[in-house]
Amino acid sequence: MTRQRVVVVGGDAAGMTAASRVRGTDPEAEVVVLELGRFTSYSACGIPYLIGGVVSGGVEALVARSPDEHRRRGIDVRMATEAMEVDTAAGEVVVLDHHTGRTERLGYDHLLLATGGEPIRPPLPGIDLPFIHGVQSLGDAEALLALAEEGCRRIVVVGGGYIGLEMAEAYIERGCSATIVERLAQPLALLDEDFGGRLADALRGRGIDVRTNTDVQGFEPGLVHTSGGDITADLVVLGIGVRPRAQLAAAAGIELGVAGAVHVDDRQATTTERVWSAGDCAESTHLVTGKQVHIALGTYANKHGRVAGINIAGGDVRSPPVAGTAITKLCSLEIGLTGIRQSQAVAEGLDAIAVTVDTSTTAGYMPDASSMTVRMTAERGTGRLLGAQIIGGEGSAKRVDTVATALAARMTVTEVADLDLAYAPPFSSVWDPVAVAAREAMKEV
Amino acid sequence: MTRQRVVVVGGDAAGMTAASRVRGTDPEAEVVVLELGRFTSYSACGIPYLIGGVVSGGVEALVARSPDEHRRRGIDVRMATEAMEVDTAAGEVVVLDHHTGRTERLGYDHLLLATGGEPIRPPLPGIDLPFIHGVQSLGDAEALLALAEEGCRRIVVVGGGYIGLEMAEAYIERGCSATIVERLAQPLALLDEDFGGRLADALRGRGIDVRTNTDVQGFEPGLVHTSGGDITADLVVLGIGVRPRAQLAAAAGIELGVAGAVHVDDRQATTTERVWSAGDCAESTHLVTGKQVHIALGTYANKHGRVAGINIAGGDVRSPPVAGTAITKLCSLEIGLTGIRQSQAVAEGLDAIAVTVDTSTTAGYMPDASSMTVRMTAERGTGRLLGAQIIGGEGSAKRVDTVATALAARMTVTEVADLDLAYAPPFSSVWDPVAVAAREAMKEV
Repeated sequence: MTRQRVVVVGGDAAGMTAASRVRGTDPEAEVVVLELGRFTSYSACGIPYLIGGVVSGGVEALVARSPDEHRRRGIDVRMATEAMEVDTAAGEVVVLDHHTGRTERLGYDHLLLATGGEPIRPPLPGIDLPFIHGVQSLGDAEALLALAEEGCRRIVVVGGGYIGLEMAEAYIERGCSATIVERLAQPLALLDEDFGGRLADALRGRGIDVRTNTDVQGFEPGLVHTSGGDITADLVVLGIGVRPRAQLAAAAGIELGVAGAVHVDDRQATTTERVWSAGDCAESTHLVTGKQVHIALGTYANKHGRVAGINIAGGDVRSPPVAGTAITKLCSLEIGLTGIRQSQAVAEGLDAIAVTVDTSTTAGYMPDASSMTVRMTAERGTGRLLGAQIIGGEGSAKRVDTVATALAARMTVTEVADLDLAYAPPFSSVWDPVAVAAREAMKEV
Repeated sequence: MTRQRVVVVGGDAAGMTAASRVRGTDPEAEVVVLELGRFTSYSACGIPYLIGGVVSGGVEALVARSPDEHRRRGIDVRMATEAMEVDTAAGEVVVLDHHTGRTERLGYDHLLLATGGEPIRPPLPGIDLPFIHGVQSLGDAEALLALAEEGCRRIVVVGGGYIGLEMAEAYIERGCSATIVERLAQPLALLDEDFGGRLADALRGRGIDVRTNTDVQGFEPGLVHTSGGDITADLVVLGIGVRPRAQLAAAAGIELGVAGAVHVDDRQATTTERVWSAGDCAESTHLVTGKQVHIALGTYANKHGRVAGINIAGGDVRSPPVAGTAITKLCSLEIGLTGIRQSQAVAEGLDAIAVTVDTSTTAGYMPDASSMTVRMTAERGTGRLLGAQIIGGEGSAKRVDTVATALAARMTVTEVADLDLAYAPPFSSVWDPVAVAAREAMKEV
């Protein structure tokens, strides 16, 4: 067998996980990783905690494995190196080394596109001004940390997605002011409106200026123009969300799918021979709807990278469908969600019900009991569990894992109500809140 | 249809849940509950938190629903009333009213035995001395609280079960001294030995004198004789475990099963016509082994009481099998377990493997990351998940619910590794520890 060359474009979660799996599965393969930035295998999810001063040690603290560590494991990691073009007919990538300025054509037996995502930048006047930053890479983190240490004081976050909200809280923790400008009636559009309202209250309680139903109309240096008036800003953070970085794939004629993400099957193969994709640039399949979706989460990048790597090296494993399970902690409020909401279910043509249970994080008589609300969605008739949202105090949100596991098992709400979940007074009421919600849902379906 | 009379013996979780369900399902039925004590529907699990001063308000704080509240819902609750004898042929219970001293024969159409459990009292010299207390009923709690308020200072806990350990910590919190005497090499025999060792270290770190491999040989007033010498004690707490209180059933010729518990099917029916049983006095069926077991947990009492009540009222529902899911927090250490351990699996004739993963409760770079260990057991060949134990810092133990859910779905470890579990830096590493353990188990099976 001739030695295969595997070229990976992108050196973060999906790319490096795949590279490591190729290396681990096929010790003969040559594994080349092209990374435009200066870091590999880092936790972008940790950036708000770095900015907020929760995590110390600079951006290096968020690096799980450096380029040199990967090199010592036999992976040819090339930093500051950009894949300019893919020639799928020839099986070659045009590579620009930013150190030397030189371009070369690099042949591949297999190519993995793990180019990740990029912050959505709405096409507004002034959107490219230098005081506007995304929160995506460790390069972004370095810039933001340097600015924070210089003492920029007035922060405007455009959009109420996870990372934007987490950044707003981080700046408040640093002693800055923070304003969130959200187009919709609530932050975190993944939540039902009333849940979003509770979140907005918590953010405001922490001193964040949350402006909902407000459109951003443009930027000038030091100024954000909105439908509700101008806001002065030393720094603007983009928090609208992430779109797939799929320009390289598109230009090469590789098929794109939903939301402009690279279309892949459950082996992470594209429809182009010997080209694979994984991570924030690629599609997933939704567990509940069965449809292709684009959900940019680090957990999927890792899982799909693993599957891509094993398959590239000759294995045959499949990516599990995704439930969209997500969690965050904002201003002492925990939020978890998985599956689909009632409104999404109805949009999918399902006859769906939703029930809401207000309960507490511990036995009610414990002094540190705090409120917790579980909303569960299920299909009428079949009783099939469709999803849940949880919002509440400490110990609330990770319970969404029980629902995610039940979704993977395609349980009915009756089966969820019967689960043998752990109870002791510091952790739960005797009927676990997830089971209580399922019991309520049984009555409705 | 003639009006049915349902007699329930025992007014705690199982009995009152069943009574409420009969009342809710069949509004015509006459529902009589006989309770020997002075309380209904209380949380015995809360007693340590009451003694430790975490919960205030006296024993009433642990009452979920009082006799009068039940009466207002149409249940004929008779307190200080004892079922002395059951005549299954006549369909009658001999009832002693301790208020009046009078005995009557009470006919039933259906009888539910929900007599609960009682602390195991080893047949040792002096075991009936008045300074020796169980921790089972609110009557026990009242006595213990009164003694604690009088200021008893030296506590000896006999046996290292959950409630005994929780009580030892509670007394330390009150400023008392506490000694645990455990026959085996470790406290909490439900755990593997090394997990038990970590627990013992935590208990000792909190100032509890943990004496393992030590037999209690007898009692004298103020003194506990052990194989390791005498220990002075103002108060002895029984913490060995619970056995079913099934004397009434046995005397009536009602079939007993495993560990002397009342034998029931999955409708909570005994083998005697029109006699049912639920709660700590009754058997359950184990989810993993399929065998009858006696596991005394409040969650089962509630669930099985519900099933008994619905079936008595003419419904047809089934009790789910139990996984033995349990959780506790002791001296800042959380412990969760579900399913069966490797040693239990081997004893069941299964070819079982176990893997252990040392990880952290949050992303490793978060400052409050604390250690967490997951041990997962699976069947070789099939890869079937069999159980897990989790020990660690805050946020560790409730993750056992994910495993309990996967057990109910009879998942393989491969399916568990693929679960879409929630990740954000304050809650987890990017690969959830349960999934990491499952991934390790995949290699072994």
